[in-house]
Amino acid sequence: MAGASPSPQRVAVIGASGYGGLQILRLLQDHPGFRVTFLGGSGSVGQHWNDRAPFLPLPGNPAIEEPSPEAIAAAADVAVLSLPNGLASGLAPALLRAGVRVVDLSADYRFPTVAQWAATYTGEAERHPRHDDDLCAEAVYGLVEWAGDRLASARLVGAPGCFPTASLLALMPLLQQGLIEGEGIVIDAKTGTSGGGRAAKEHLLLAEADGGVAPYGVVGHRHTAEIELQASKAAGRAIQLQFTPHLLPMVRGILATVYGRLRDPGLTAEDLTTLFQVTYRDHPCVAVLPVGTYPSTKWVRQTNRALLSVAVDKRTSQVVVMSAIDNLLKGQAGQAVQCLNVMTGQRPETGLPLLPFYP
Amino acid sequence: MAGASPSPQRVAVIGASGYGGLQILRLLQDHPGFRVTFLGGSGSVGQHWNDRAPFLPLPGNPAIEEPSPEAIAAAADVAVLSLPNGLASGLAPALLRAGVRVVDLSADYRFPTVAQWAATYTGEAERHPRHDDDLCAEAVYGLVEWAGDRLASARLVGAPGCFPTASLLALMPLLQQGLIEGEGIVIDAKTGTSGGGRAAKEHLLLAEADGGVAPYGVVGHRHTAEIELQASKAAGRAIQLQFTPHLLPMVRGILATVYGRLRDPGLTAEDLTTLFQVTYRDHPCVAVLPVGTYPSTKWVRQTNRALLSVAVDKRTSQVVVMSAIDNLLKGQAGQAVQCLNVMTGQRPETGLPLLPFYP
Amino acid sequence: MAGASPSPQRVAVIGASGYGGLQILRLLQDHPGFRVTFLGGSGSVGQHWNDRAPFLPLPGNPAIEEPSPEAIAAAADVAVLSLPNGLASGLAPALLRAGVRVVDLSADYRFPTVAQWAATYTGEAERHPRHDDDLCAEAVYGLVEWAGDRLASARLVGAPGCFPTASLLALMPLLQQGLIEGEGIVIDAKTGTSGGGRAAKEHLLLAEADGGVAPYGVVGHRHTAEIELQASKAAGRAIQLQFTPHLLPMVRGILATVYGRLRDPGLTAEDLTTLFQVTYRDHPCVAVLPVGTYPSTKWVRQTNRALLSVAVDKRTSQVVVMSAIDNLLKGQAGQAVQCLNVMTGQRPETGLPLLPFYP
Amino acid sequence: MAGASPSPQRVAVIGASGYGGLQILRLLQDHPGFRVTFLGGSGSVGQHWNDRAPFLPLPGNPAIEEPSPEAIAAAADVAVLSLPNGLASGLAPALLRAGVRVVDLSADYRFPTVAQWAATYTGEAERHPRHDDDLCAEAVYGLVEWAGDRLASARLVGAPGCFPTASLLALMPLLQQGLIEGEGIVIDAKTGTSGGGRAAKEHLLLAEADGGVAPYGVVGHRHTAEIELQASKAAGRAIQLQFTPHLLPMVRGILATVYGRLRDPGLTAEDLTTLFQVTYRDHPCVAVLPVGTYPSTKWVRQTNRALLSVAVDKRTSQVVVMSAIDNLLKGQAGQAVQCLNVMTGQRPETGLPLLPFYP
Repeated sequence: MAGASPSPQRVAVIGASGYGGLQILRLLQDHPGFRVTFLGGSGSVGQHWNDRAPFLPLPGNPAIEEPSPEAIAAAADVAVLSLPNGLASGLAPALLRAGVRVVDLSADYRFPTVAQWAATYTGEAERHPRHDDDLCAEAVYGLVEWAGDRLASARLVGAPGCFPTASLLALMPLLQQGLIEGEGIVIDAKTGTSGGGRAAKEHLLLAEADGGVAPYGVVGHRHTAEIELQASKAAGRAIQLQFTPHLLPMVRGILATVYGRLRDPGLTAEDLTTLFQVTYRDHPCVAVLPVGTYPSTKWVRQTNRALLSVAVDKRTSQVVVMSAIDNLLKGQAGQAVQCLNVMTGQRPETGLPLLPFYP
Repeated sequence: MAGASPSPQRVAVIGASGYGGLQILRLLQDHPGFRVTFLGGSGSVGQHWNDRAPFLPLPGNPAIEEPSPEAIAAAADVAVLSLPNGLASGLAPALLRAGVRVVDLSADYRFPTVAQWAATYTGEAERHPRHDDDLCAEAVYGLVEWAGDRLASARLVGAPGCFPTASLLALMPLLQQGLIEGEGIVIDAKTGTSGGGRAAKEHLLLAEADGGVAPYGVVGHRHTAEIELQASKAAGRAIQLQFTPHLLPMVRGILATVYGRLRDPGLTAEDLTTLFQVTYRDHPCVAVLPVGTYPSTKWVRQTNRALLSVAVDKRTSQVVVMSAIDNLLKGQAGQAVQCLNVMTGQRPETGLPLLPFYP
Repeated sequence: MAGASPSPQRVAVIGASGYGGLQILRLLQDHPGFRVTFLGGSGSVGQHWNDRAPFLPLPGNPAIEEPSPEAIAAAADVAVLSLPNGLASGLAPALLRAGVRVVDLSADYRFPTVAQWAATYTGEAERHPRHDDDLCAEAVYGLVEWAGDRLASARLVGAPGCFPTASLLALMPLLQQGLIEGEGIVIDAKTGTSGGGRAAKEHLLLAEADGGVAPYGVVGHRHTAEIELQASKAAGRAIQLQFTPHLLPMVRGILATVYGRLRDPGLTAEDLTTLFQVTYRDHPCVAVLPVGTYPSTKWVRQTNRALLSVAVDKRTSQVVVMSAIDNLLKGQAGQAVQCLNVMTGQRPETGLPLLPFYP
Repeated sequence: MAGASPSPQRVAVIGASGYGGLQILRLLQDHPGFRVTFLGGSGSVGQHWNDRAPFLPLPGNPAIEEPSPEAIAAAADVAVLSLPNGLASGLAPALLRAGVRVVDLSADYRFPTVAQWAATYTGEAERHPRHDDDLCAEAVYGLVEWAGDRLASARLVGAPGCFPTASLLALMPLLQQGLIEGEGIVIDAKTGTSGGGRAAKEHLLLAEADGGVAPYGVVGHRHTAEIELQASKAAGRAIQLQFTPHLLPMVRGILATVYGRLRDPGLTAEDLTTLFQVTYRDHPCVAVLPVGTYPSTKWVRQTNRALLSVAVDKRTSQVVVMSAIDNLLKGQAGQAVQCLNVMTGQRPETGLPLLPFYP
């Protein structure tokens, strides 16, 4: 299994006590190929881990440390950065120079140029001026199933956003094969509140978010640009689409319901399901359901699996692809571990749960 | 307020212990113009109400009775039928003959012919053969804001489905004015589990439905036909659209996110918001939010108000209308009371809560 | 109904955008005897209400004002203070001097001396030195059903805490009649997260609080002192008891399960239920359920009603009293309105919902 | 790890599609020492597993079979019975005769005589007359941490109920050491709705159970007898206690808050925490938290770990022990696997998750 990495790789987790960090730490406790050797934080430097997270005690009860590049490089072979947008680009260059490979969970390395990033992350770009166009160009977009060969040898990976992961797994097969029109694509996405992070915000309180559903970021949510960038690459032409996220009263999970118009109205759900199954045949973290079976996010909760289902309305020639993931695993930290697996010569699903505990 | 009905009208509620019945009973406890004089049930005949529903004690602790047309007609001026599809059409004709006006919460009288109903409700049509085309033709579709003058004098009202209510309030202004194209309309709807009724079903258990979201009835949900019927009338041409409901981990509420392509790409969200505000100006049960404010279903929970918000994406010329209602009130029983109000000369919002208790 | 107050009393609500304030404002929209004439806030001074709370639009869209005693006195006859502990005592003295009657939702006036308050609210007492022992002595404890005649003419009311309300309604009949032993009383309480307020705190995030239950404030929660003070008065001797609150994954509601040992082991649940029913016969905001029917907090959600049920275990001679309230209404703002009703000569339940919308 | 069982043991799971069965199947997918070789069901015989449970696909997509003793014995070394009370005792005798070791998740083998079982499970005893007193006497009560040496060689194990597991882990150290009085013990328990099983029942619908908390089975819940039986054994005298379960709006988890009076009022929380830590030192599925840290059921969700915390109120001499488990794992199926581990010479925690995915 870990044939290419005889001794476990040493991993630094920066931003350990956020939800992304917590998942990384939990996943690596069971992972045969990695061990955590550095915990980096900000507000909590000096505290011992188990006091902060009694629900996830770590062996040796390590202290949380200031994430200086030198300290990280001394302790780890690879680093996972789970930081607010704009901060990773302040840390990654020095880490790479010191020989530490980096998987970044923020948006900093998801765009091929700083300018494209800054066009979407305007506030962050003002607060954090960047000059690492070379790294933007070098970084591999870590949607493992579509990342291609460059991922295995990547020094720097920009892990995809949670919504782009769910959306692109549904869209890419259709766009790459030219099966749907480029106009009129609608992505209606639903997310649990953990996608908003662990920092306390009024609208994410249980008292506010429970018992209701609401859209947010309508027209212009920042993941739109990320999705369109990859969709355009796959289609070989500029794609503009409608992406609307909704906040749901649940902790984890994203469901993206993706609508497009078929170019060939004769295609059936069975045809497309076969296409999807072939596309993802060698990808153990994606499964395609039979026609007529629709995924619940609960079926992938606390797993690194994406579940897809395809329906077709013959009357309207619309295809509806439903894509369910756990926003914190396949949509964030699990995909980061999946990237690390590939980067270190392990099978992509190594150490990653694929089956849920239901209910 | 109740000027046209000096003494309270006597109301029969048939199917009292389901969720629709419970809402009717609760609403009428506070209503100045109605009093409940007959409780009809099936499995629970002979039981006293307060034993079945200790949380909603009724004055006098009435018994639940067999809903025979004679008994109903002896006790009540109007009847609200909250029964499974196919059963109302077995009861309504006799009630009307006996002079009882009827508001039906099922789908039985939402279509202008039995054949159209049977095309969608195939199973029910087999089990319950019908010959009341005349009543189908006579029945008024009880979407109050769009029902027109016939509602006031109607003998028989088919109250709209929950999804059609949320969807049509969003769509009608656009279609009637010819502002969007007839093709490519997408309605992505999200509902709480109470929409599935009170009869115990595995997939509606808290253990099953909590903590996840899933689509259901993809391509072909029966509310599609009901929505298309009204949409086509408004547009003056046959409309076929994509309607996809999703089951959310919450009790009450529907959010419909409606996507369409603008015919005039110069129209702005402000333009359309003004249009919507003008359209619903005289309708106290619908409110249109300012541009950039998006409704939560929690903002309308346990109220009879619909909240709408309109967004426009200039890049794609798409309009996104968000429509939030309480599925059991404006989407069902509240709208039935609203119909009763209009039918008896009262203001439509009489006795109906319009403001939520938040959170 | 509002016989003693022919024109509506003018009410100032201070701390309007917290959960307590929101409930007061919502309740008073439907109240025949009061109208809100002043909205006081802190961070939001100058903003217009409807921009902050689009879900609860107020007529005239009033501005939120600095809560100076002069401005309040110019605008209102009575003031409801919904402020953090320690702040009301900085405002109430001036209001009373200006002739404004005060109902305070904080703990500031729940103890007969400043010293007793300071012994429990130590941090607040350090930050807010007080010298209003006279007002502590004058203030009436606003548990309406047990407040006695002084409430009607009170200038200053300390509204009870949410847990004390649920607990004392269950305990008082037993203690006053000497039916249970003074030792070994256990109150195991369960609350929704809205009891923690609207300020954003990590542990109240949906992502944290949903899907689990945990105790907090074990041994020494500050409501213990408040409960013991009233319980001791009723018993005529010093009572010390065990109070343990638990945080539940729901928005509203408190259930207190109260355990005590019967002095007379021959007493049955029927005996005690009769006693409770007699005790609360003239109190419309408290209802006692039949033996064997146990209350859900959902049965009182968004109402000002408390539901009680009494069970007895003959084997152990233990009595178990279950007490369910809505923590924000009967446990806070609803009870404040109930106090205002009594203070202004109205029936206690005026303008207060007593029946829930279920489910 | 699986030294004593070089080839994986073959396991039959009877009642596979209920919540208990689902957990067993999920756990055994990751288990090095077992493989599932027989799926027994009732209503679903002949169906293929993956059609019924697309969220938990099993290798080979096995069919669900009629659970005849012969078929089970031909396929498996051990059987886990996850059946309604009264049914296991119809199957277990034949299985044992055929050489299949049995772990039963029902209450059938939790009592030392049929008569004691029948006294509590009266309805089941009428429907299912039993004559297997010998097996009742032989069966080992599978609370692993307290089961002693007999478990390793047991042919028949009665796995404890969910509430007894949480309650007894908290009570046993105190009772065995004689640290609390035998009278006045209160167990106030809170459970998620999955404890009620997967069969559809109205009160377990999300629409009913969400957003509220209610007690049930007050005075006389059937787990009382099971708890008292084990508690009495530990104490060496007859113990009668107060057990009150509450239904919470969450899927998984039990929190038992256990109250008792200390015999020695000088004992501190630190003393008792040390005692608990020593007691459970060699038991990896139980952890004792530091004084002042209280467990959330979320900290043990989808794990086989119990988390305990001890508090003492010096004023009242009461000890409060909080005990959190996942009702479906440590409270049911996980504990069954833990039993199987011990019965087959493996470490008790083999193949069992001990750390949660948080949040």
